[in-house]
Amino acid sequence: LTPHPSREERVSVAIAGATGLAGGELVRLLIGHPHVRIAALAGSPGSPERAAADVHPALWGRTDLVSRPLDPASPPEAEILVLATPDDVSARAAGAALDRGGRVLDLSGAFRLKDPSTFLEWYGYEHPAPRLLDSAVYGLAGTTDPREVRRARLVANPGCYPTAALTALLPLAAAGAIDPAGTLVVDAKSGVSGAGRKVAPEYLYGEVAENCRPYGLPRHRHHPEIAAGLADGLGDNLVFIPHLLPAERGLLATCTARLASGWTPADARAEIERAWRDDPFVRVLADGSLPSLRHANGTPLAVVGLAATPSSRHVVVACAIDNLLKGAASQAVENLNLMIGADRREGLL
Amino acid sequence: LTPHPSREERVSVAIAGATGLAGGELVRLLIGHPHVRIAALAGSPGSPERAAADVHPALWGRTDLVSRPLDPASPPEAEILVLATPDDVSARAAGAALDRGGRVLDLSGAFRLKDPSTFLEWYGYEHPAPRLLDSAVYGLAGTTDPREVRRARLVANPGCYPTAALTALLPLAAAGAIDPAGTLVVDAKSGVSGAGRKVAPEYLYGEVAENCRPYGLPRHRHHPEIAAGLADGLGDNLVFIPHLLPAERGLLATCTARLASGWTPADARAEIERAWRDDPFVRVLADGSLPSLRHANGTPLAVVGLAATPSSRHVVVACAIDNLLKGAASQAVENLNLMIGADRREGLL
Amino acid sequence: LTPHPSREERVSVAIAGATGLAGGELVRLLIGHPHVRIAALAGSPGSPERAAADVHPALWGRTDLVSRPLDPASPPEAEILVLATPDDVSARAAGAALDRGGRVLDLSGAFRLKDPSTFLEWYGYEHPAPRLLDSAVYGLAGTTDPREVRRARLVANPGCYPTAALTALLPLAAAGAIDPAGTLVVDAKSGVSGAGRKVAPEYLYGEVAENCRPYGLPRHRHHPEIAAGLADGLGDNLVFIPHLLPAERGLLATCTARLASGWTPADARAEIERAWRDDPFVRVLADGSLPSLRHANGTPLAVVGLAATPSSRHVVVACAIDNLLKGAASQAVENLNLMIGADRREGLL
Amino acid sequence: LTPHPSREERVSVAIAGATGLAGGELVRLLIGHPHVRIAALAGSPGSPERAAADVHPALWGRTDLVSRPLDPASPPEAEILVLATPDDVSARAAGAALDRGGRVLDLSGAFRLKDPSTFLEWYGYEHPAPRLLDSAVYGLAGTTDPREVRRARLVANPGCYPTAALTALLPLAAAGAIDPAGTLVVDAKSGVSGAGRKVAPEYLYGEVAENCRPYGLPRHRHHPEIAAGLADGLGDNLVFIPHLLPAERGLLATCTARLASGWTPADARAEIERAWRDDPFVRVLADGSLPSLRHANGTPLAVVGLAATPSSRHVVVACAIDNLLKGAASQAVENLNLMIGADRREGLL
Repeated sequence: LTPHPSREERVSVAIAGATGLAGGELVRLLIGHPHVRIAALAGSPGSPERAAADVHPALWGRTDLVSRPLDPASPPEAEILVLATPDDVSARAAGAALDRGGRVLDLSGAFRLKDPSTFLEWYGYEHPAPRLLDSAVYGLAGTTDPREVRRARLVANPGCYPTAALTALLPLAAAGAIDPAGTLVVDAKSGVSGAGRKVAPEYLYGEVAENCRPYGLPRHRHHPEIAAGLADGLGDNLVFIPHLLPAERGLLATCTARLASGWTPADARAEIERAWRDDPFVRVLADGSLPSLRHANGTPLAVVGLAATPSSRHVVVACAIDNLLKGAASQAVENLNLMIGADRREGLL
Repeated sequence: LTPHPSREERVSVAIAGATGLAGGELVRLLIGHPHVRIAALAGSPGSPERAAADVHPALWGRTDLVSRPLDPASPPEAEILVLATPDDVSARAAGAALDRGGRVLDLSGAFRLKDPSTFLEWYGYEHPAPRLLDSAVYGLAGTTDPREVRRARLVANPGCYPTAALTALLPLAAAGAIDPAGTLVVDAKSGVSGAGRKVAPEYLYGEVAENCRPYGLPRHRHHPEIAAGLADGLGDNLVFIPHLLPAERGLLATCTARLASGWTPADARAEIERAWRDDPFVRVLADGSLPSLRHANGTPLAVVGLAATPSSRHVVVACAIDNLLKGAASQAVENLNLMIGADRREGLL
Repeated sequence: LTPHPSREERVSVAIAGATGLAGGELVRLLIGHPHVRIAALAGSPGSPERAAADVHPALWGRTDLVSRPLDPASPPEAEILVLATPDDVSARAAGAALDRGGRVLDLSGAFRLKDPSTFLEWYGYEHPAPRLLDSAVYGLAGTTDPREVRRARLVANPGCYPTAALTALLPLAAAGAIDPAGTLVVDAKSGVSGAGRKVAPEYLYGEVAENCRPYGLPRHRHHPEIAAGLADGLGDNLVFIPHLLPAERGLLATCTARLASGWTPADARAEIERAWRDDPFVRVLADGSLPSLRHANGTPLAVVGLAATPSSRHVVVACAIDNLLKGAASQAVENLNLMIGADRREGLL
Repeated sequence: LTPHPSREERVSVAIAGATGLAGGELVRLLIGHPHVRIAALAGSPGSPERAAADVHPALWGRTDLVSRPLDPASPPEAEILVLATPDDVSARAAGAALDRGGRVLDLSGAFRLKDPSTFLEWYGYEHPAPRLLDSAVYGLAGTTDPREVRRARLVANPGCYPTAALTALLPLAAAGAIDPAGTLVVDAKSGVSGAGRKVAPEYLYGEVAENCRPYGLPRHRHHPEIAAGLADGLGDNLVFIPHLLPAERGLLATCTARLASGWTPADARAEIERAWRDDPFVRVLADGSLPSLRHANGTPLAVVGLAATPSSRHVVVACAIDNLLKGAASQAVENLNLMIGADRREGLL
């Protein structure tokens, strides 16, 4: 893709939250990345020092990197700090890294919204670093202007549900194909890795296997992120219903939209195909096919399909992603590539 | 419940399709039913003669009944023939049994709709016995007038998806709480036992596990059944999206409806609670809870929950059932109880 | 089976640990038991007061019983106290109940071994009530003399692994068919419900699904229980290797034994068939079949199969049980039936 | 690792069986292999022409290769033909490719044993090309002399179970640590992908999920392959019991061996650690740890652990592999690397 720099010329990257699920995928992707040199790994505050390969068995034999405890007030130094940490840790560590002149790519929800008041309403906390919100660039790979990401000192990697929902809906929203007076339903289903390695009764095998449940209504934190991405009032009629699947990985957003006057399902399909034709990470399935988790799992892809409804007044647009890759780590690498001026595909395809 | 008859006075019942998944549940429920005597079991046409306990391990030690091959032109004789067979087999066997004066309870889709033309459009076949459609009673337990079922010679047991969707939506539809101009989305998820024991690539473990996919759009056969049940034009804006879950059993219908003018989510909840208050098989969860498969699996219950949406313009009503029980066999026993004048709970609670 | 007493004449039973998985199965089985009246339910010490149907959704509509916090020093009063509690709680509660003249059926490991010193070595604790060990009757249903259970004041319900292993091996051990100088391997696999509802990282869906791991070597507490059951020195060469399966329920013990001189695999099969011919809860599969979890799950059965090895010097005897039923609650009901002089099948078949 | 050739200088490789599960992994690994150029893909005889990325979604955007129907009498031409096809197809295609001067790497069972009579007894067929058996090199990566593989015109890639069992046991067998008079039990558990994409009732989700069953006794075809690998009479007392797990991928072989006189478990551990110390694909876990599927899944590794038993007379050695990688495709790449004189790790680490 782009000419590969020598090891000395590579961009130094530190990863915090490297002991988590998304963090592990980041390490795996970046140890093979030709433009990047991993300068340091950190876990969470208080986490023990551990070889990355002991935490993530897939790394055995591939790296000797060691994850150290994270001090959010003094995160590891590097040209770019990648944060796969909880919101509060990210907010603090990002501030510290920016203050000393570094750049930050954050996978948490801390910098995805612009209005500080939204955090209290939807996230349940007062934002600890509201002054940073304005400068953060929301990096929806393939949609956000790459020049903005290239220039940004702080990039917010999108949430997993918003990535899938917006990939499905943005081409139609942007083209005016969706009736703003109609109901817009995003019925989404995610594997449990969306909750990371949280140890709680609801994530036990005995609770998750052979089960499926909606959760988070009516105030899931990804609701305002989807609404903000759609803009233009479409968010007012948004109904977002996340479900937990009996699966470890993968996320499917099944979106139903009422077509604006004059639009047919075939028009909508054409618009979606046109929008994503040249994107290396969005696959649009042929007519008659809708995506399943298996289309996307283990890949950096978003896989989109569209179906008409009996009356042709609505379309169903479904998008599948691997929540830990396109919904987290591989989209972060896309953003990282843009930040360092490399080809967006570098290290991924 | 009702006084138990002696064995000689019990109603004789024959079960066809007894080697299938729903058929096996019917046998399990009816061998313990105090008013019923199983006169005969039949499998499918051409199926070998096998002890029921060899086909269904849970029956070992509980019955010596043997399943024989089914001749649809001459199904086993009994006061009531219960058919857990494919549509075409059901249509033929029902005709034969009715012709000789028997009564029929059919679990297939053959007699659920009234208009013969609908079958060609939605089911993909010309109905083989259109003259029987008019007399068939659609037995949505808890909703259909029990006197109709008591008198019926042919009862059509509802489909699994319609049972869940209509249990969720009927109280609101009947009360005028749903805006007929709004989109009505039924996003449903089912375990694979909904497809019975069909041997096909899409039902292999390697395809189903850790996967989830929408299917059947835009013309799933349960769409007109749900639309017919809702009546009053609500079906025109119905979008029904079934999904296959990585689970064996259980079905969840997540329904989004726009409230009619003047209705609040609290009104809607009150209406649902009122409608199902005395039903022994419908459990309405407390405010703040939505059902999961585990609420209903292994039980004859439908479990309903309601959540508001951020704007309060819509409600999400979810209903979980065990697709092989409330979605098939246990609802059939409810109907059978009504057919023989017994308490609806007999043999189930 | 046995003539049913009036409600007043039924035996009163209290269940402690009723909020656990095995406890929930006990409640389910005993609310339908014709000779038993549930006098009280208790959870664990400190557990909140909750309706049993809220804890165990399958009980909704079937019982109004409420589970109260357990005080091990003063467990609920009843003719028989059934304990589905951890060892230490069981030891205390059993002592208290026996002291006031009650009888006890304990599902924990507290009273399964005779020698107090074994507890320190294998269970990791000093036995808190060693004086009770001698009087406890180890109730391996179908093997222990029923008259002993009938008379016992304290019955220890066997562990799940020992139940499966001993059902597989006891007929051969008793007949002298196993070479005591040969290695005896019990390679066992269990679903996660064997660990109850323990909230720990190793029981998260993300750790259990699509995984399988041996654990507990070399000192799993069920090792001495199996060895004690086999007697006669066979335990000296026992290798017991439990594995955790990616399944909620079910347990399979795959046992390999070297045949004693003069024994053929056919002799071994004949012996096993003879031993279990009249047992209502042990199913011996036909030649050529080995059991799977699905043979037993959801049933009170132990399902046994035998296969020869290429050299015919060894036999493989496998036994499948539902670990929560035959491995816990339904075997407890068998023992309870014996304790009250009822037919062993009462409430189960 | 080794200096990378230009694209023209790469070794041309054709893959037959590219539409299967192991074939898909081969394609994925080889499109990224720096020394290899994929000349052609073929499916099975009669399989339709399809883009590889349509069959294997993970390849989307990574290759335009098309799989064509396979004619076993005239397989695609290349310096090396890799066969991921059934035995009979492999036997014919290998003969054809060798006859015209090519080299063959076969992943089927057709060339793993030396004695043609063994095939009739264990595989159930008369070997169609017995003259090829002698020249075939059994390529157990890390064990077979690499110079033999380098020179071989026909390499047989080991079976999945033998790979795990021999990796666990060979160091002890070679050192004389195993008592040849003792029973040697290989209790193995495999995910369903071991059966490829076979469409049969026993591989349906509804049969596999929440289930576990032993199968293939007493004459599983991998028995003689393990026995042959162990040599020295150890195979005479081998008991090999494969089980099907409710998992898609991964294989665990839990092996129990009686130690030869004078050996302790610590000696055995030292021997295993010594044997695999420098192997890039075998990880030996620290004392106290046994492997799970998750240690190996998705990696080219075999992960080994050892535990003592209470009497210290036996050891339990467990080995986990990804059955489609170390048990098939990645081990094939190891062998391919040896065949072309490249570093064994090339394309894998």
